[in-house]
Amino acid sequence: MTTSASREKTRQVEPFGDDVSTPARVAEPGEAISYEELQLAARNHGMPLEALAYDLTPTGLHYLLTHYDMPVLDPDTWRLQVDGLVQTPYAVGLDELRSMEAVTVTVTFECAGNGRARHEPRAQSQPWLVEAVGTAAWTGVPLARLLERAGVRDGAVDVVFTGADHGVERGVEQDYQRALALADARSDGVVVAYAMNGAPLPPQHGFPVRLVVPGWYGMAQVKWLTGVEVVVEPFDGFQHHAYRLRQGADDPGEPVTRIEPRALLVPPGFPDFYSRVRVVRPGEVEVVGRAWSGWAPVTRVELSTDGGATWADADLDEAPAGSLYAWRRWRARWDAQPGEHVLTARAHDADGRSQPREAGWNRGGFANNSGQRERVVCLPR
Amino acid sequence: MTTSASREKTRQVEPFGDDVSTPARVAEPGEAISYEELQLAARNHGMPLEALAYDLTPTGLHYLLTHYDMPVLDPDTWRLQVDGLVQTPYAVGLDELRSMEAVTVTVTFECAGNGRARHEPRAQSQPWLVEAVGTAAWTGVPLARLLERAGVRDGAVDVVFTGADHGVERGVEQDYQRALALADARSDGVVVAYAMNGAPLPPQHGFPVRLVVPGWYGMAQVKWLTGVEVVVEPFDGFQHHAYRLRQGADDPGEPVTRIEPRALLVPPGFPDFYSRVRVVRPGEVEVVGRAWSGWAPVTRVELSTDGGATWADADLDEAPAGSLYAWRRWRARWDAQPGEHVLTARAHDADGRSQPREAGWNRGGFANNSGQRERVVCLPR
Repeated sequence: MTTSASREKTRQVEPFGDDVSTPARVAEPGEAISYEELQLAARNHGMPLEALAYDLTPTGLHYLLTHYDMPVLDPDTWRLQVDGLVQTPYAVGLDELRSMEAVTVTVTFECAGNGRARHEPRAQSQPWLVEAVGTAAWTGVPLARLLERAGVRDGAVDVVFTGADHGVERGVEQDYQRALALADARSDGVVVAYAMNGAPLPPQHGFPVRLVVPGWYGMAQVKWLTGVEVVVEPFDGFQHHAYRLRQGADDPGEPVTRIEPRALLVPPGFPDFYSRVRVVRPGEVEVVGRAWSGWAPVTRVELSTDGGATWADADLDEAPAGSLYAWRRWRARWDAQPGEHVLTARAHDADGRSQPREAGWNRGGFANNSGQRERVVCLPR
Repeated sequence: MTTSASREKTRQVEPFGDDVSTPARVAEPGEAISYEELQLAARNHGMPLEALAYDLTPTGLHYLLTHYDMPVLDPDTWRLQVDGLVQTPYAVGLDELRSMEAVTVTVTFECAGNGRARHEPRAQSQPWLVEAVGTAAWTGVPLARLLERAGVRDGAVDVVFTGADHGVERGVEQDYQRALALADARSDGVVVAYAMNGAPLPPQHGFPVRLVVPGWYGMAQVKWLTGVEVVVEPFDGFQHHAYRLRQGADDPGEPVTRIEPRALLVPPGFPDFYSRVRVVRPGEVEVVGRAWSGWAPVTRVELSTDGGATWADADLDEAPAGSLYAWRRWRARWDAQPGEHVLTARAHDADGRSQPREAGWNRGGFANNSGQRERVVCLPR
């Protein structure tokens, strides 16, 4: 029995000074996007909002955030190690995983940092606006079944997931690792997935195998999964320190967990290339969007065409069957009149959570579900 | 016979003022990335350089630049109209196109604006660094065959390609349009493609059908293709004005056409999340990359591990059979010593073109094939 994987794989033995690994920093008020943020924006990408038209986000349009590099793994030699505080540690290969009874869960993922660049001041990191989202059907084996096979022993607290993606972050060399409390790890819908939208995972989404935790922000969805370890103490790895809602550097903060409610709309009409301002012609416009929450099903969506001064209920499509944490489609009619308009939407969920017009600030730039502000110019008649 | 499609679809009848459509502008020296550039960077995306490991770029990792919105087209009703100065104008549907004799061409695409954000000062547009590239196998029908079926008449000069993507750019409302001279349009390898890497085109790469022009920068690769029109005069559309190498606003400049030679390398070791600086341990490191040119086959690649002070020849893999304009793999050994290093590579082609350390400036930020500068820290022993 070993419970030391996390400590072995997160180490600060090397001298990663500021020449390699810059400390986390909040930009000065009004400070420009840094070269480092631009580098991140050029390699990671959001979902262009016109792709809200698809129930399942086509591969390549789903948002993508990679902490380090995407590893190139050999599916023939890849093994998932299941160990720690269990009766029978074991390793499982891809063929065996594929031969087990499979489930498919349709889940909306969102980056915890979505909206970060709309905070003022802004945490320096991947500078998302509102587009770090996507929905896919993930097929794999329930994690509960893999844990059951190992036989979790009494006293287990957390389950630690290790990815093959390796890098440095704020001076700490690490394989990417996140944990879930045992009860969360065993819950329905948590899947060790080898297929996305019916095809093998693409490299960027964790090939050959990733974790899927419905309802949680992206940091929980460990890609390139290599290890599942049951541990006796609450896991205290780097990423659990990183993903917290803090007001200041010394604030311990609360952990980032589930996705706050959000509604987004397909930008109507057509865009200007550079400004992305939308153009419509006068008359009735169908406004279509999606809404989701990681806490509970979305029960209501409202649309405002005057920047949030007045609101009207949108029509909600039926929730997709058996998909508690997939986005729900909504639509509304708008009688566009010449002039400039700001469209925004807000979502409400069955737990009583409502999307705010302006979400609160935090130092990491997390969970910013402030409303989209879509500038639309309606041409003269 | 009609030769007016281009004029019908590019019109400046609506009042798109500065509130919608900002004039093209070069940033002030040192001026920060604008909100508009950030919006573009969040929706478009480069190929993370570790994906240079793949002969064919996996879907979703290939670079992507969309001028307007990605249209959602119905493959059952989509038609390609072939007309203009031809004997027999016709329209062809997707099933018929798929039933014709097909060819597959493996082609490296690069955005004409790749490297734009490394110009000083920088044109305000999609702020690429070096990553706007990708290679795919495109399957479809040779354009020459489609033109032959229509019967091109004497006096034909250009062939105009129209996409379904619609927007405003610098005040001009338009469907995206580009043209080729008739001889270029008829040349080997120019394909009307319906498949990418053996699968139907994904929406973002032009579903159901796009144009593929091997060797040319991305602006020639018209996506969501709806029209092929043979015309009697040189085509003078918006995008032909936009994609020119200008020194000033009044400089007519030369058109952007074929891809300048470039070599890129897979960043060695592992990265810091934020700075993207690379970390390696002392000893031998295999440096791997790809090189391409749209003018002629790549014949030589050199690697420098001291920022361009000294160079050594890399080993070039065989060129892929029958793929004149696909990238070529190269490798070199590097004996990494503790300290900081800057890795860069340069490509040479059979036409005598060589990649410069610093490419010349132009107002649009085009064809900047300045060498990659990959900062690598080698740890102490």
